[in-house]
Amino acid sequence: MIKNRLQALRLEMEKTGVQAYIIPTSDFHETEYVASYFACRKYMSGFTGSAGVLVVLMDKAALWTDGRYFIQAASELENSTIELMKMGQEGTPSIEEYILDNLSQGSVVGFDGRTINTNDARRYQNAFATKEISLEPNYDLVGRIWTDRPSLPNSKTFHYDVKYAGKEMDVKLNEVREEMKKVYATSHIITKIDQIAWLFNLRAFDIPHFPVALAYALVEENQATLYIDNSRLDEESRTLFNTYGVIVKAYDEIYEDVKSLQGNILVDPSNVNSRIFFSLKGNIIEGRDPIISLKAQKNDVELASTRLAHIKDGVAVTKFMYWLDQNVKTGNVSEMSAEAKLQEFRASQEGYIEDSFSTISAYKEHAAMMHYSSNENTNVTLREEGMLLVDSGGQYYEGTTDITRTFVLGPITEEEKYWFTLSMRSHIRLAKANWLYGCRGLNLDILARGPLWDQNMDYQCGTGHGVGHLSSVHEAPNGFRWRIVPERNDSAVLEYGMIQSDEPGVYVEGKFGIRHENELIVKKGVKNYYGQFMHFEVLTFVPFDKKGIDTSLMTKDEIEWLNDYHKEVFEKISPFMNEDEKVWLKDVCSPLV
Amino acid sequence: MIKNRLQALRLEMEKTGVQAYIIPTSDFHETEYVASYFACRKYMSGFTGSAGVLVVLMDKAALWTDGRYFIQAASELENSTIELMKMGQEGTPSIEEYILDNLSQGSVVGFDGRTINTNDARRYQNAFATKEISLEPNYDLVGRIWTDRPSLPNSKTFHYDVKYAGKEMDVKLNEVREEMKKVYATSHIITKIDQIAWLFNLRAFDIPHFPVALAYALVEENQATLYIDNSRLDEESRTLFNTYGVIVKAYDEIYEDVKSLQGNILVDPSNVNSRIFFSLKGNIIEGRDPIISLKAQKNDVELASTRLAHIKDGVAVTKFMYWLDQNVKTGNVSEMSAEAKLQEFRASQEGYIEDSFSTISAYKEHAAMMHYSSNENTNVTLREEGMLLVDSGGQYYEGTTDITRTFVLGPITEEEKYWFTLSMRSHIRLAKANWLYGCRGLNLDILARGPLWDQNMDYQCGTGHGVGHLSSVHEAPNGFRWRIVPERNDSAVLEYGMIQSDEPGVYVEGKFGIRHENELIVKKGVKNYYGQFMHFEVLTFVPFDKKGIDTSLMTKDEIEWLNDYHKEVFEKISPFMNEDEKVWLKDVCSPLV
Repeated sequence: MIKNRLQALRLEMEKTGVQAYIIPTSDFHETEYVASYFACRKYMSGFTGSAGVLVVLMDKAALWTDGRYFIQAASELENSTIELMKMGQEGTPSIEEYILDNLSQGSVVGFDGRTINTNDARRYQNAFATKEISLEPNYDLVGRIWTDRPSLPNSKTFHYDVKYAGKEMDVKLNEVREEMKKVYATSHIITKIDQIAWLFNLRAFDIPHFPVALAYALVEENQATLYIDNSRLDEESRTLFNTYGVIVKAYDEIYEDVKSLQGNILVDPSNVNSRIFFSLKGNIIEGRDPIISLKAQKNDVELASTRLAHIKDGVAVTKFMYWLDQNVKTGNVSEMSAEAKLQEFRASQEGYIEDSFSTISAYKEHAAMMHYSSNENTNVTLREEGMLLVDSGGQYYEGTTDITRTFVLGPITEEEKYWFTLSMRSHIRLAKANWLYGCRGLNLDILARGPLWDQNMDYQCGTGHGVGHLSSVHEAPNGFRWRIVPERNDSAVLEYGMIQSDEPGVYVEGKFGIRHENELIVKKGVKNYYGQFMHFEVLTFVPFDKKGIDTSLMTKDEIEWLNDYHKEVFEKISPFMNEDEKVWLKDVCSPLV
Repeated sequence: MIKNRLQALRLEMEKTGVQAYIIPTSDFHETEYVASYFACRKYMSGFTGSAGVLVVLMDKAALWTDGRYFIQAASELENSTIELMKMGQEGTPSIEEYILDNLSQGSVVGFDGRTINTNDARRYQNAFATKEISLEPNYDLVGRIWTDRPSLPNSKTFHYDVKYAGKEMDVKLNEVREEMKKVYATSHIITKIDQIAWLFNLRAFDIPHFPVALAYALVEENQATLYIDNSRLDEESRTLFNTYGVIVKAYDEIYEDVKSLQGNILVDPSNVNSRIFFSLKGNIIEGRDPIISLKAQKNDVELASTRLAHIKDGVAVTKFMYWLDQNVKTGNVSEMSAEAKLQEFRASQEGYIEDSFSTISAYKEHAAMMHYSSNENTNVTLREEGMLLVDSGGQYYEGTTDITRTFVLGPITEEEKYWFTLSMRSHIRLAKANWLYGCRGLNLDILARGPLWDQNMDYQCGTGHGVGHLSSVHEAPNGFRWRIVPERNDSAVLEYGMIQSDEPGVYVEGKFGIRHENELIVKKGVKNYYGQFMHFEVLTFVPFDKKGIDTSLMTKDEIEWLNDYHKEVFEKISPFMNEDEKVWLKDVCSPLV
């Protein structure tokens, strides 16, 4: 099947005059999870992982993917004639090297420029220039041969009310224009769909867990254009676009419009796709999309709103915690049934829309896999021993949540208790940070990682990520990470109103996994001679399972923090509990000494 | 006087055809402290501060300096007709703006390109291009009118023996050439005098506290040239230059040689002066001078050697601490006499060459000024109360030291004891850090700053700086700072063998100043599944004054660290104490509970 598809593609390559064709994983908007319409790489290779690039030449083909997928890719590519390229391993050529090695002087490399961002395309361009190999970014060759291709997502939109969003779109448009002026830009091309959702207070259901619509936008000095199929728009949004003079054009029309754009065009080359970029004739100003920063600093209405969302979510997860406590002993609870029950608790909260990502419900050694997803093959029954890690979140009209708790279902080992406590210390030390304005996540990260690093242990991932507002649960440009990785754009200065997760953990392969996660808001503290001090407000309220904690390993102020936190959990959550739950909650929130 | 000098300079400006002349503070080598020969800005303005730029136009003149010097500069510039430009204050134009505002289209701006580095000169060039104003970097106009100018430093050199340096110059030249190859450079211009001192194992006494010689160097694929007056060279160095084929040319000759340099020339634009840069005709490769990193990672001979230097220094400072304890009560000890006594203790150590910087001996509120220097006008008698902060260091053949202790001379206030203890916690927490390889100072800084930030307090400077090896006491590219400041080049990844200070403090204006400083070596720790862990080895051994400490404010492991440290101080230092000193040392090193 794969061989036939490759053959069909090569026929199209021949017709179009390209000697190599690059097929990445992305959609047209650099979205984290892509709709099935965009699954060209999977269609052409059979490889189902979430990251990888397929390169097809006339006589061979190869697929690049990273360490997470080496085993899976090897198995899925078997019999496909596609060679597996293990990224990061010594001796593996880069995509550019492979193409340079195999193509002759003056060849043409084709790709759908909508699926490759400007930065990547320019990297190819620079490399290929050494052999006068040119780029052809204007053909979707897979589209020509993919007969039963799913259609583009087309869900109905809804207006995101200003009572949750805090600002009408005219205010936001003005803010964006102010930022444009600072860099002398007269127009700004926006292709990231969460940026567009924020700007126009527009939401939809194009992608699971990420309630936004596929669209493009163009903001100019005196006009704004939204590129989206008009029939998808809800009445309210349509009326508001009229009111605020926002022009609505067909989704695809942006590709024509940008060709004639004059003046200084602001382009974020890490976002904007290369087909758009290469077709620009105006003066290009490269820079970060200012919406990234505007959106990340939640306004006071958004903050008040998301505090409500987090109470609702806290009620759901706390009820789930009680339910676990009562039901694991029946022997009828599994990873998957627990996951379903949790969703039931969330769904019964008013304003719940959907989960903000696929729940991780991981028992014992399954939790050592950071991104485990329980399925029919792996599902196990929970017993009164060991730990269950549950990482989950909800999309509510009031905001987006993300929480992890590690539940102690019965006896655990000394080793488990030790790491449960140390990673609890990690969580607490970051949550109670106080710092001078100007710090980035990379300055604060060691507060969390320190207690584990002191024991030569590490969790091998970021400590936390930015969180959107009824938007993506992973959002730039803030987060906690110790390495400087410019492409990730997650080390911005921590500004008032930014929300990010605090989720250190310990993962021991084949044994257990522990993670403690709350969301935190950046707040202003004391301003004095030394500057503006900053700290966090905790946003998530669900008990941490005290059964995992050995207070002899903690400092006095860390224990105090935990007791204060549990006191607040009880105050905020108990009003929504029934009598039995309330008695239990009182107990699980009682202070440790 | 200043007016006459300005008039004389303007005559020279007229002759040369320049309408503005820029006079910075630097020497030809971007040295931290400059010899008196280079004090052109002071000569022309009367301003004696360590930072500032004078710009002379035909009808007016202005001097830019920073907040440290506003009051001093205002007083020193009085009656000079030179306007004071307060950098960082709103409304103050930049040098570029001032020149652009005052000069007409097509004017010429002159300066001695040897005293302005490439980065700065290019910034001027870019700004001035908007008005077609050109640069003339080839005239030292102040030199023409400064009749009694001091001569260039001309001290005799000495060879720095491989038993201290660890590597012969041929080995170092090969290391540099390896780094050059990595960036395809065929030649490398070196103008920083500590880089040159390291490369050729050459030292001298051109600048107080910084035992190196003014020189330039050029490393090519098959030859190396040192630009220094041959008559200054000691016999041993001269012989070794012969042995290793190092060509010696006159100091100034580099300016001719670089003009004809072919091939790929590696230039560090933050170091190399603009007269050299502008005269290059070859292909320029910009990058950090690889010597900065090679030099910072001390080899095992240097490490062993500097450990010895630190024992000697520890003996001197510990003897001083005992002497203070015995003599303050006589009422005959002042800030300045204490400083002199400390130097006496250092000078009596074998291998001592000179102090590594001007000692700060600051009693009570004087210590709140971070860079206080006691003089006849400020000197005070020490009494049996309050605290004395002494920041000092030595240049020994074995290495360079830098240490601060805050001595408690008698009763101190609760406030003083509180901050003494908190800044002690800061010091300890950084010293006992354990981290994954790849961290920079900016990841670790909050370990020190955290306990103070938690109380909304900050010390408003870096936590520590890199330290040279019989070289500058302030050395790139490592240090502890939380802000990212690329120009400072002090946030490199912490590599094995790097040495840096750990010196947090608390400064309360008009009241007191506290600083606790040791030097630390970066070492490798456990290597496991998670990566290579790193930690520090403490290099400095002198008791911290326990009288300042309130253990109720410290954690158990911090007290443990301090007790372990004092145990080690006693073991290492007591063999060099007399009987009385030993009894006293036993007591001041006894454990706290």
